[in-house]
Amino acid sequence: MDQQQTPLYDRLVLHAGKKPVSLHVPGHKYGLLFSGEERSFFRDIARIDATELSGLDDLHEPEGVIKEAETLLAGAYGAEKSFFLVNGSTVGNLAMILGAVNEGDTVFVQRNCHKSVLNGLQLAKARPVFLGPEIDKTWGVAGGVSLQTVEEAFARYPYCRAMIFTYPNYYGMVYELHEIIEFAHDREIPVLIDEAHGAHFSAGGMFPRSALELGADAVVQSAHKTLPAMTMGSYLHVNERYRFYERLKHYLTLLQSSSPSYPIMASLDLARFYLAQIDRDFINMIIESFLEFETKLMKIEEIRLINNDSNLFLRDPLKLIVQSALGISGFQLQQALETHAIYPELADELNVLFVLPLAPIKNSETIVQTLARIFAKAINGTRRQIDENIVFDVSKPYSTLACSYQEMMNMSQVSVPFHRAVGEVSAEAVIPYPP
Amino acid sequence: MDQQQTPLYDRLVLHAGKKPVSLHVPGHKYGLLFSGEERSFFRDIARIDATELSGLDDLHEPEGVIKEAETLLAGAYGAEKSFFLVNGSTVGNLAMILGAVNEGDTVFVQRNCHKSVLNGLQLAKARPVFLGPEIDKTWGVAGGVSLQTVEEAFARYPYCRAMIFTYPNYYGMVYELHEIIEFAHDREIPVLIDEAHGAHFSAGGMFPRSALELGADAVVQSAHKTLPAMTMGSYLHVNERYRFYERLKHYLTLLQSSSPSYPIMASLDLARFYLAQIDRDFINMIIESFLEFETKLMKIEEIRLINNDSNLFLRDPLKLIVQSALGISGFQLQQALETHAIYPELADELNVLFVLPLAPIKNSETIVQTLARIFAKAINGTRRQIDENIVFDVSKPYSTLACSYQEMMNMSQVSVPFHRAVGEVSAEAVIPYPP
Repeated sequence: MDQQQTPLYDRLVLHAGKKPVSLHVPGHKYGLLFSGEERSFFRDIARIDATELSGLDDLHEPEGVIKEAETLLAGAYGAEKSFFLVNGSTVGNLAMILGAVNEGDTVFVQRNCHKSVLNGLQLAKARPVFLGPEIDKTWGVAGGVSLQTVEEAFARYPYCRAMIFTYPNYYGMVYELHEIIEFAHDREIPVLIDEAHGAHFSAGGMFPRSALELGADAVVQSAHKTLPAMTMGSYLHVNERYRFYERLKHYLTLLQSSSPSYPIMASLDLARFYLAQIDRDFINMIIESFLEFETKLMKIEEIRLINNDSNLFLRDPLKLIVQSALGISGFQLQQALETHAIYPELADELNVLFVLPLAPIKNSETIVQTLARIFAKAINGTRRQIDENIVFDVSKPYSTLACSYQEMMNMSQVSVPFHRAVGEVSAEAVIPYPP
Repeated sequence: MDQQQTPLYDRLVLHAGKKPVSLHVPGHKYGLLFSGEERSFFRDIARIDATELSGLDDLHEPEGVIKEAETLLAGAYGAEKSFFLVNGSTVGNLAMILGAVNEGDTVFVQRNCHKSVLNGLQLAKARPVFLGPEIDKTWGVAGGVSLQTVEEAFARYPYCRAMIFTYPNYYGMVYELHEIIEFAHDREIPVLIDEAHGAHFSAGGMFPRSALELGADAVVQSAHKTLPAMTMGSYLHVNERYRFYERLKHYLTLLQSSSPSYPIMASLDLARFYLAQIDRDFINMIIESFLEFETKLMKIEEIRLINNDSNLFLRDPLKLIVQSALGISGFQLQQALETHAIYPELADELNVLFVLPLAPIKNSETIVQTLARIFAKAINGTRRQIDENIVFDVSKPYSTLACSYQEMMNMSQVSVPFHRAVGEVSAEAVIPYPP
């Protein structure tokens, strides 16, 4: 099929063009009931906020334009089968895990994974073995798992039934996933990947290789994070190795709205088209624009850019990590930027993370000038105070739950002060969000 | 708080007004990456398709504008606590059930419920007792459950731990829910209601009483179905009787995207505002417009309108059921209307269902003239052929699963022709959708 086509989006445009009279849901009647100021935001999108009418297919049993759009998606990513998701990568992780994991299965999982992965393991009543990630000292963040950790854990738990990894991490760091997948496949163990931050990797060129290309059995991607898709729009791909197709489909239907959003689905169709359009010329334009931006930033001497100079990990070029050479903390830098209406993705003690567009940067001069002004003001300002008591426990490369999920359900909960919690079992996950 | 305010929507407008520079997700960068024709649909909405930035709060741990908007929602509906849902009533039903029902609990559930209710019971590993609905002969559809059926089932299963009903049904039919809730509450049994089609009932006036007003412990409503909210936007309300708040919250977080859609949430804020604005004058205008529409329709002598003339049930005036007096089937009528770009909600053998707007009808003349033309053509056309072999089994007012959900997981599946399926256990739910 032709990747230049957008069958679902086109059909919605065709439908809207008929100026249809709605005697059906949704209640806004293609936007007629939006009035006043809000009309300006909702009027146009409401024209394609349709429902499962004749010709518009059904996400949960696709036979028409949604099936065509999903087939194009699978073609673009080289998958055996691909799904549009309207409930984010959250639902992709849940369904991918519930599809492949049975009650009591031992599953290897990266300790620094997204909470939806932990939730999926809990729903599946699996026995997780948590693999400790490598820590990058320059970035001060946890990255991927090493092959050595996987090998050591496997020697201890040879009845492992599935492995789940996050690739790349939130900061765009990738690692030796290919070797780990080969290790797992040699032992007939399926590998499931949360590639939420890597939907654009398959564009090739300067981007790291995608998990699907590296052989992963199932891959979940937040199309909305790096491609031009509406928030909550995600992809799930499986290859011919993934043997749990029927169960996966069952859980996707069970866990997603029976009235899925057509605007989100249409944006997933358009995002796949956007990706398919990216050729070498466009990638070169993007690279050029990024290099220009980074060059300008590096002229501000108070700024330290974290690039591919780290030995341990490679980096997604869409993710740019900025540190202050003056001792201003990432949190302070974020706050200062936001007062100038420049919003970074996140900050931590050391870093501010920028997510760049999958397109040439248009407003780089504004960003650079603002940063320069912030640093000029801050020269005599507050310095970062790093809490030296924060330590990462990297002594144990792998660990298991203190008790099974079933036992946990029957335990009583008490509240204790933070410093008394050492040695106790946490009653709920403590995960700062955004991570 | 003031129901005239829309705190979440206002904050998003304020944010958009700053012309923010996005160095964060989503990847469309407030719409910059949408180009060409699709810009016309997505450009405006993309300006408020933000993420959990400073000031925009977090659906899963609301402390700011989302908390304010949910507090206004609870106030508008008279609930103890209300939640915005971004994964439709599907996730509301799942979480409401998983919150209140433990493994092995006996639960009464209306047999003609939405599949998400059945999925919730399966996930909770409950023991459902299915209560048969009353059948309306004129409409030819299944309605609500009678108090007598509940009483009979309770005599047989006095250890019932929860009751789940659908109110109203797809056709807007309501029933003696108040008496059933009193019966349950006298026995300390919580009542959970799938009110997907009744988000507008609390407008009062000509509308049936809402399940929350009738005392239900927890109620799920598809705001998108009858209020002006974007598709997948729903509400969940609980009153002070619902004792499973923490578990409910846990499952809502677990089952919904960690990147919820701000446009959908903003539309939920606006839909609550729309409802709060409805006063007696506006209701009178709506009634007048509906009566005018129905009067015009009744002048077409080939049309039969199903109004409140049924003894058994009352009707939501937003739902209008049209039959042909000429013997044209509902399916044929739907097809004919759609060729004129008039889209009904659904059709069955007998009926076509219209969902009218929660506002005066603006295009009633077009609809009436089209229907008149269709019937003029059809006078010598095909007549409806009712399959006399379709029978409803109303002999058993209640029934249980042929085996437990746990047993079902371990059974083998075979495919048999439809007519040989009698006496076998169905391996998957057979539910036509839309219902």
